[in-house]
Amino acid sequence: MTKSLLRVLQGEALDPPPVWLMRQAGRYLKEYREVRATARNFIDFCLTPDKAAEVTLQPIRRFGFDAAILFADILLIPMALGRKVWFETGEGPKLDPLSADDIASLEIGDVEGILGPVGETVSRLSVALPEETTLIGFAGSPWTVATYMIEGGGSKDRWNARRMYWEHPDAMQRLLDLLADATIRYLVMQAHAGAEVLKLFDSWAGALPGNMFDKYAIAPARRIIERIHAVEPGVPVIGFPRQAGEKVIPFVEATGVAGCGIDTSVDPRWAAQNLQGLTCVQGNLDPMLLVTGGDALVRTVKETAEIFADGPYIFNLGHGITPEADPANVDVMLKALRG
Amino acid sequence: MTKSLLRVLQGEALDPPPVWLMRQAGRYLKEYREVRATARNFIDFCLTPDKAAEVTLQPIRRFGFDAAILFADILLIPMALGRKVWFETGEGPKLDPLSADDIASLEIGDVEGILGPVGETVSRLSVALPEETTLIGFAGSPWTVATYMIEGGGSKDRWNARRMYWEHPDAMQRLLDLLADATIRYLVMQAHAGAEVLKLFDSWAGALPGNMFDKYAIAPARRIIERIHAVEPGVPVIGFPRQAGEKVIPFVEATGVAGCGIDTSVDPRWAAQNLQGLTCVQGNLDPMLLVTGGDALVRTVKETAEIFADGPYIFNLGHGITPEADPANVDVMLKALRG
Repeated sequence: MTKSLLRVLQGEALDPPPVWLMRQAGRYLKEYREVRATARNFIDFCLTPDKAAEVTLQPIRRFGFDAAILFADILLIPMALGRKVWFETGEGPKLDPLSADDIASLEIGDVEGILGPVGETVSRLSVALPEETTLIGFAGSPWTVATYMIEGGGSKDRWNARRMYWEHPDAMQRLLDLLADATIRYLVMQAHAGAEVLKLFDSWAGALPGNMFDKYAIAPARRIIERIHAVEPGVPVIGFPRQAGEKVIPFVEATGVAGCGIDTSVDPRWAAQNLQGLTCVQGNLDPMLLVTGGDALVRTVKETAEIFADGPYIFNLGHGITPEADPANVDVMLKALRG
Repeated sequence: MTKSLLRVLQGEALDPPPVWLMRQAGRYLKEYREVRATARNFIDFCLTPDKAAEVTLQPIRRFGFDAAILFADILLIPMALGRKVWFETGEGPKLDPLSADDIASLEIGDVEGILGPVGETVSRLSVALPEETTLIGFAGSPWTVATYMIEGGGSKDRWNARRMYWEHPDAMQRLLDLLADATIRYLVMQAHAGAEVLKLFDSWAGALPGNMFDKYAIAPARRIIERIHAVEPGVPVIGFPRQAGEKVIPFVEATGVAGCGIDTSVDPRWAAQNLQGLTCVQGNLDPMLLVTGGDALVRTVKETAEIFADGPYIFNLGHGITPEADPANVDVMLKALRG
């Protein structure tokens, strides 16, 4: 029997819909924090198959989600371009900032070697997961990863990345092309290792000027998906152009995604009317409801599922679950959804 | 002869379109910084008609914009609800955070008295401006102002405000109603003093869950606009639900705005096709182009104006001009636009 997540990605409507949560392997779980504490640093944690596979499995054991998403980070890919990445406690990811000149000398290294431990994690998960659970692999979209590489980490307004596409459009394009090519190899490796669905996170899609969205969000995603499907035609890709507003429509029409994540700011009624006819929609409960709980949680879960009941749909949050979320509220959410 | 900004707000298409810039009275201008240095603090600066009128006029003298926007701040209105507001250098606005209990005892004070100096600034500007220049008054939208009041200032993710609408929806509604009523009095005062157009800034509209946009962004704006038009039917209102994506359409349809600002993330081609038939569109050049300048600036100004040439349109940025902008680039922009 085909798994529920794969069925909705093929266009079926299911009741109840399959459900998983962005960042479901995360700090809101005590058992996650215990494993995290045994790793020297966050990058080591991601690149140690034992630990990465274990935290990927934890929320499946606890909640029985319909999909497991590989535990990794979108900022592993810069390592495949020869960049150092490290995490400072309480400060998030750090890299050496990239200038336009730096970009000219960047090259793609041994992607499959450098990120081989991620492939190993996927292989182990592929064996370890219950048979009804779909395994999702993922990567960051080139524009989103580029913002971190240019800034040298997170930033309030992505000033240097936004400056670069106006001042050095050729360097920016070269960086996005390199990232797209490395990402294709990375995702193909994940698919070969057993990932059944791939997700492309464009977390900063909403920071792009509207007139650059085609070039910097849609075109790289289309390139990645086309090349993956040339090798692995049976692996559906879910896109997530976060805060892209109305631009999710051209994104879905042009990229070949089988599903599209919508963030919390999207009106679910609008998405049901305008997006769900084009693709399987995934989203978009406010993660705050897993902190606050109560009647509002139950009511909003039921309302959201009802809005999307007539088409292909994956229940999820509109952003990642937060460390402040109460695992008991996840149980409440699942009960409201599954009855 | 009717002023150009008023003509486009009545539905006319003009070539060249009227132009002004969000935050045009600002730190990128040497003459602004000189006046700013004479004020004890930012609130005093806003509430001293001499100084506020002077910095409002500076960009008109220098650039000949088609509209002047009152120099003030969206965080003056909490003072009319009895809250203290102060600015700390390099840190932005500060207020005492509001709890749900605090909201129960809030009351609207003497709006016209407390914010009387703003009315005085508008009166002076009304006399001092060139006859072809339109005077725009403004306020923040209730939801956006509420986020600052609840958080006690700016915040990364508006955590407490988002928490409050799930945990204390009645308190949140009371706060928004109080803010709407105080804002109506504030904007009517500005109109009586000579503001010819009013603008409502909903800077954090994009932070609302999509299913709350009707209640927290559209309904307060509609209430404010209806009540203003009951008193001052001839004063058009421009809305600016920032980062609201596809929701600008229902916003415009439901609120009665005469114009709608679009932020930089909106695709101008989409807005020309889907929004401009409903209202006068204002926007949305990337403010970064006034930092970087060059051919990209000239080309993008011309492209943007061309896209909106067939309908009512106000040329502007998609966000406020930044302190890093080069005033010489504003001249380049105006030359590209006006020939």
